[in-house]
Amino acid sequence: MSDAVQIALDAMSGDRGPDVVVDAALHVLGRHSDLELVLVGESRLLETLVDARRVDPSRRARLAIEHAAEVVTMTDPPTAALRKKNASMRVAIDLVKSGRCHAAVSAGNTGALMAIGRFVLKTIPGIERPAICAALPSRAGRTYVLDLGGNVNCTSEHLYQFAAMGAVLAEALRGDGEPARVGLLNIGEEEIKGNDVVKQAHELLRRAPLNYVGYVEGYDIFGDKADVVVTDGFVGNVALKTIEGVANFLRDNLRAAFSRNLFTRLAGLIAYPVLRDFRRKVDPRRYNGAALLGLQSIVVKSHGASDRVAFANAIDIARSAVRFDLPRVIETRIGLYNGNSAA
Amino acid sequence: MSDAVQIALDAMSGDRGPDVVVDAALHVLGRHSDLELVLVGESRLLETLVDARRVDPSRRARLAIEHAAEVVTMTDPPTAALRKKNASMRVAIDLVKSGRCHAAVSAGNTGALMAIGRFVLKTIPGIERPAICAALPSRAGRTYVLDLGGNVNCTSEHLYQFAAMGAVLAEALRGDGEPARVGLLNIGEEEIKGNDVVKQAHELLRRAPLNYVGYVEGYDIFGDKADVVVTDGFVGNVALKTIEGVANFLRDNLRAAFSRNLFTRLAGLIAYPVLRDFRRKVDPRRYNGAALLGLQSIVVKSHGASDRVAFANAIDIARSAVRFDLPRVIETRIGLYNGNSAA
Repeated sequence: MSDAVQIALDAMSGDRGPDVVVDAALHVLGRHSDLELVLVGESRLLETLVDARRVDPSRRARLAIEHAAEVVTMTDPPTAALRKKNASMRVAIDLVKSGRCHAAVSAGNTGALMAIGRFVLKTIPGIERPAICAALPSRAGRTYVLDLGGNVNCTSEHLYQFAAMGAVLAEALRGDGEPARVGLLNIGEEEIKGNDVVKQAHELLRRAPLNYVGYVEGYDIFGDKADVVVTDGFVGNVALKTIEGVANFLRDNLRAAFSRNLFTRLAGLIAYPVLRDFRRKVDPRRYNGAALLGLQSIVVKSHGASDRVAFANAIDIARSAVRFDLPRVIETRIGLYNGNSAA
Repeated sequence: MSDAVQIALDAMSGDRGPDVVVDAALHVLGRHSDLELVLVGESRLLETLVDARRVDPSRRARLAIEHAAEVVTMTDPPTAALRKKNASMRVAIDLVKSGRCHAAVSAGNTGALMAIGRFVLKTIPGIERPAICAALPSRAGRTYVLDLGGNVNCTSEHLYQFAAMGAVLAEALRGDGEPARVGLLNIGEEEIKGNDVVKQAHELLRRAPLNYVGYVEGYDIFGDKADVVVTDGFVGNVALKTIEGVANFLRDNLRAAFSRNLFTRLAGLIAYPVLRDFRRKVDPRRYNGAALLGLQSIVVKSHGASDRVAFANAIDIARSAVRFDLPRVIETRIGLYNGNSAA
């Protein structure tokens, strides 16, 4: 491979179609001169979309198109998705497997992406289950939360591996060389604290070569206590969707308060620049892009409804993970931890 | 008992001390002429606090003081709390046991309150474990979520009982005679949907004489799909604290955006009435008061940091639950459900 980072983009599987992916690709190519992208999907359609955008030649030269005739739908179960050998999602991951690309990004069906990723790329030795990890805004900047839905019934060993992988991702994306602080999600009532799996994971983590800060609670995701918050896929998925729910609910109520009557509309107009700054700060698109950790290569899941800004952010995450050599660093660390825990 | 509703208030155990409880008591006595309250705690202190407020005689006549020499602290484990026989929390619950009061309200340590409640009042026949249930704001008005921390390792039978109890509470507090819609919290990835306990609970609920709407996800807590959302105490507690975290984070960021400079401060001044209306709508104090469901009498937990408005809301919930005869209705329904599931 050259010095450039090559990333395959599944252009067809998101809710908003290939337009968004083409726009995001062109945008990110302008941002990083070391980047080369491969749009995967219906090639004629993609060529038409790219041509219509009158891209400057320096960017166009770093944008390839790879044909894929099929599409994995949002309702395809993993088994059906695995049979679609010509789907854009599959071809994008095959490009990573063959060494043509370093990473793949898709806004498609999460279960299918995980299944194809595991089947084609395999997991890192020592990792029993890959996990999904995404960033959320916090007082500390961002908090990386995992697992977000891949693994419902987890053992303490799984949580321990998630912790190690999450720490590597946080360190890769922050890039400040500081070890990430890892917290284990628990509840606070003293007597009934935690279930057995959480308690056992706590013991494993206390002995691990990690910057482990102990138990954290739900509100600590937004605080400054940990950079990585570890939990099982059921709790993580509920927490993530609950956050989405409350944020949308508050946004809609704020909007409604400002559109009640002429006075409130006027107030909204005056407050508009402030509200825009606020929205920008907590804009979920800036946090879009969940890494599928534990695979032998890098796969990033973009939100199904990603727009250009959100999808571009997911590409940025993939690029940073490639530059950090994420899977190799995870492999080394997991070996280290397993050696340590066996000692 | 007379036609009045008598409620015992643990005046000593909240983070903000007895002032808040005295203020809340006087406020609620003004709101409901059928209410009689008993302040439980250090009697001289409470008398001084009440006297200092120059209460009008009609309210003062409905306010009694019961002495209690000890206080359960926020860090007392349940076992230690159970040994404090003269604690305000214990005396308040003893007043319910003896029939002097219909319900107790406390802003103290949740684990201790649950332990004392179970020990003194016992559970309703057929209920294996009491659950904690509170309301959250939603597009539908409010959603009742349980369990919020009492029970970490739940069986499908427990979730099923929580569903029945939550439905009764929602119906008691809404008071419109409509059967509450009950949803079971799950995650959405098709192939990996739910753990075994959730799947089994789903089967039980489908056959139950309940308005069961099926699986719901994290964002549905704020939606219009269910009035009651059922989950285990670990997930419920994480969800609740995550909601608290994200709401505080957004509030702080909104505040910061409006205090950046002279212009933003001016905009904030103009937008103030709108922001105040918005805050009022989503004010967590209006949703304060979690019912300990499954006990033979009514116990309501107020947030530890409750102010007057919040504590008053918890008293209102206790009063509505008494009027609805909540424990008896739960007992009847549980008998009905158990008969049904045995059939």
